[in-house]
Amino acid sequence: MELNDLLRQQSEWLKGAGPSAEIVMSSRVRLARNLERVPFSHWANKKQLEQALNSVETAILESGCLDDPISVRLKGVEEVDRQFLVERHLISREHGVNPDHKSVVFSRNEMLSIMVNEEDHLRIQALQSGLSIHQAWGRANRADDLLSERLTFAFRKEFGYLTCCPTNAGTGIRASVMMHLPSLVLTKQINKVLQAIAKLNLTSRGLYGEGTEASGNFFQISNQFTLGQSEEEIIDHLQRVVLQVIEHEQNARRALLAQNRELLEDRIWRAYGTLKGARIITSHETIDLLSTVRLGVDMGLLKDVERATLNDLFIMTQPAHLQKLEGKVLGAAERDVKRAALVRERLTKRSAG
Amino acid sequence: MELNDLLRQQSEWLKGAGPSAEIVMSSRVRLARNLERVPFSHWANKKQLEQALNSVETAILESGCLDDPISVRLKGVEEVDRQFLVERHLISREHGVNPDHKSVVFSRNEMLSIMVNEEDHLRIQALQSGLSIHQAWGRANRADDLLSERLTFAFRKEFGYLTCCPTNAGTGIRASVMMHLPSLVLTKQINKVLQAIAKLNLTSRGLYGEGTEASGNFFQISNQFTLGQSEEEIIDHLQRVVLQVIEHEQNARRALLAQNRELLEDRIWRAYGTLKGARIITSHETIDLLSTVRLGVDMGLLKDVERATLNDLFIMTQPAHLQKLEGKVLGAAERDVKRAALVRERLTKRSAG
Repeated sequence: MELNDLLRQQSEWLKGAGPSAEIVMSSRVRLARNLERVPFSHWANKKQLEQALNSVETAILESGCLDDPISVRLKGVEEVDRQFLVERHLISREHGVNPDHKSVVFSRNEMLSIMVNEEDHLRIQALQSGLSIHQAWGRANRADDLLSERLTFAFRKEFGYLTCCPTNAGTGIRASVMMHLPSLVLTKQINKVLQAIAKLNLTSRGLYGEGTEASGNFFQISNQFTLGQSEEEIIDHLQRVVLQVIEHEQNARRALLAQNRELLEDRIWRAYGTLKGARIITSHETIDLLSTVRLGVDMGLLKDVERATLNDLFIMTQPAHLQKLEGKVLGAAERDVKRAALVRERLTKRSAG
Repeated sequence: MELNDLLRQQSEWLKGAGPSAEIVMSSRVRLARNLERVPFSHWANKKQLEQALNSVETAILESGCLDDPISVRLKGVEEVDRQFLVERHLISREHGVNPDHKSVVFSRNEMLSIMVNEEDHLRIQALQSGLSIHQAWGRANRADDLLSERLTFAFRKEFGYLTCCPTNAGTGIRASVMMHLPSLVLTKQINKVLQAIAKLNLTSRGLYGEGTEASGNFFQISNQFTLGQSEEEIIDHLQRVVLQVIEHEQNARRALLAQNRELLEDRIWRAYGTLKGARIITSHETIDLLSTVRLGVDMGLLKDVERATLNDLFIMTQPAHLQKLEGKVLGAAERDVKRAALVRERLTKRSAG
């Protein structure tokens, strides 16, 4: 099991690099694919699922679609490790829950991962830092092409790719951008912006996708429809809207700076002081405070810490990451203590004082 | 006007020294005296008040009862300066409000001060750090003796000293001890303790005396009655009760350390982090946070800062002190910004980092 190795590296998408990295945490493209003549995962029997698992894994490894691939069969993997993969955005929550006949194969740099036997037989996901939807799409598309040479995907001329849930049919693409919009929240413009996004056929979700609430002022904006448009059109549309949201957030930041600089700095430095002081801290409070400090770093108001350090802390302070760092199961109260210690250590190590 | 000089020195009673200084901020003894054959200040006419003012001031200066005396006639003194004297505990709130025919004379080290034409013609006050009621009494008593050689105080064999308010008649003494009782507050034992204190004929007040609320977990414990007991009996009784309250606070601190160390450290370090981070902070929040940090210092949990620095900040962050430091009138919002800057500067200067 090489999962522990991941603890010592930072996922590429957390590096805080790439275009508009001061507002866009990461870009993601996910393609849903199913095997022809095999029932969707939910309807397939054990034998069919096991066959699909084997043939897809073999195709992934033989096609060379992933650099330096790591393959993890989820059955037999401890719950904390599955949760760890969820926290790293390598698998979905759903994929971690019932691990039978499921696996994930991902490139060591974590920029490309493929879930096998999730809702669809294949979920190809490309993830990278900054506003890089086109690049992510390029990498997902290349993997799809390479896999198509070895697997026959369920495809109908009139519908496009068939998927378990009809909302994914057609292109099977979901492109999403994780945006950090603290100033739109602070200036109470966020609801207006999210409503506008909804009218443009895009949806907004929280840090961990569908059904999760926005926390830490992170909003995952993605396409709502997969049918009737080409992948490029879907991506271009998302990119255009995201650029507008970026502009709104930038305007809100400028307005805060011009009109409420002291109030803003107060918030930012209090959050930083609390993070460096706390001895007990929940995951929820940590995310909120990190979000505020990140705004300070992104606006150049706080220079003691790197954006990449903060991004890393968003993930490292999650429950499974904390437990893997400690090498043992920890209750919620123990985690709150370890979390505070980790935050303090990381912020002190990287800061000037 | 030498008031600005005071800004550059720390009042002796803030030094955080003396017996039980980890719980007792300061001890104070105040004697109320009135001139024979002169109506009490409230009833006297302008001429009588002016005569009383002159004769008392002359007696103070000629008697040598104050070391290196500074004399301040309050009429003509700006409101911010009068408020400054209140914040330093050199005069009462009431004394600062209507300054006509009033003065204060105090020793340069601020350990002894005499208000003239407050409610009583003379209010002799000795103030010093730690649990030092007997010493404070000794100094107030010596000043009283020296002044008695030059002034005739209103005194009746059957009543003792006559005072404007009958609750002060007899000895005219009020002995009080400013106690810092954060652990009794945290462990919710404070009301029980205050009730017990009341049954023992002692009263509890806030930082700035009668009518002020307890803030920052400071409680000023003093004798309720001035009649029917000698000064020594009153002081001995107060001292005995205060020693018991100290023991309760110490027990509460030990219990917190044994049972809730992490929670306690979390509170203390968050308070410290917030004080070092804030860019805007009210007086009320400052006092609360300083109180928590002081508990950390007094318990040896936080070693980055000296008790004397914290004590000083309790006073320096008050409105008039901030304005005198800046050398100009500041509105509440401006003060909140200056206060945060001052706290940050002082805590950073004295801390290791």
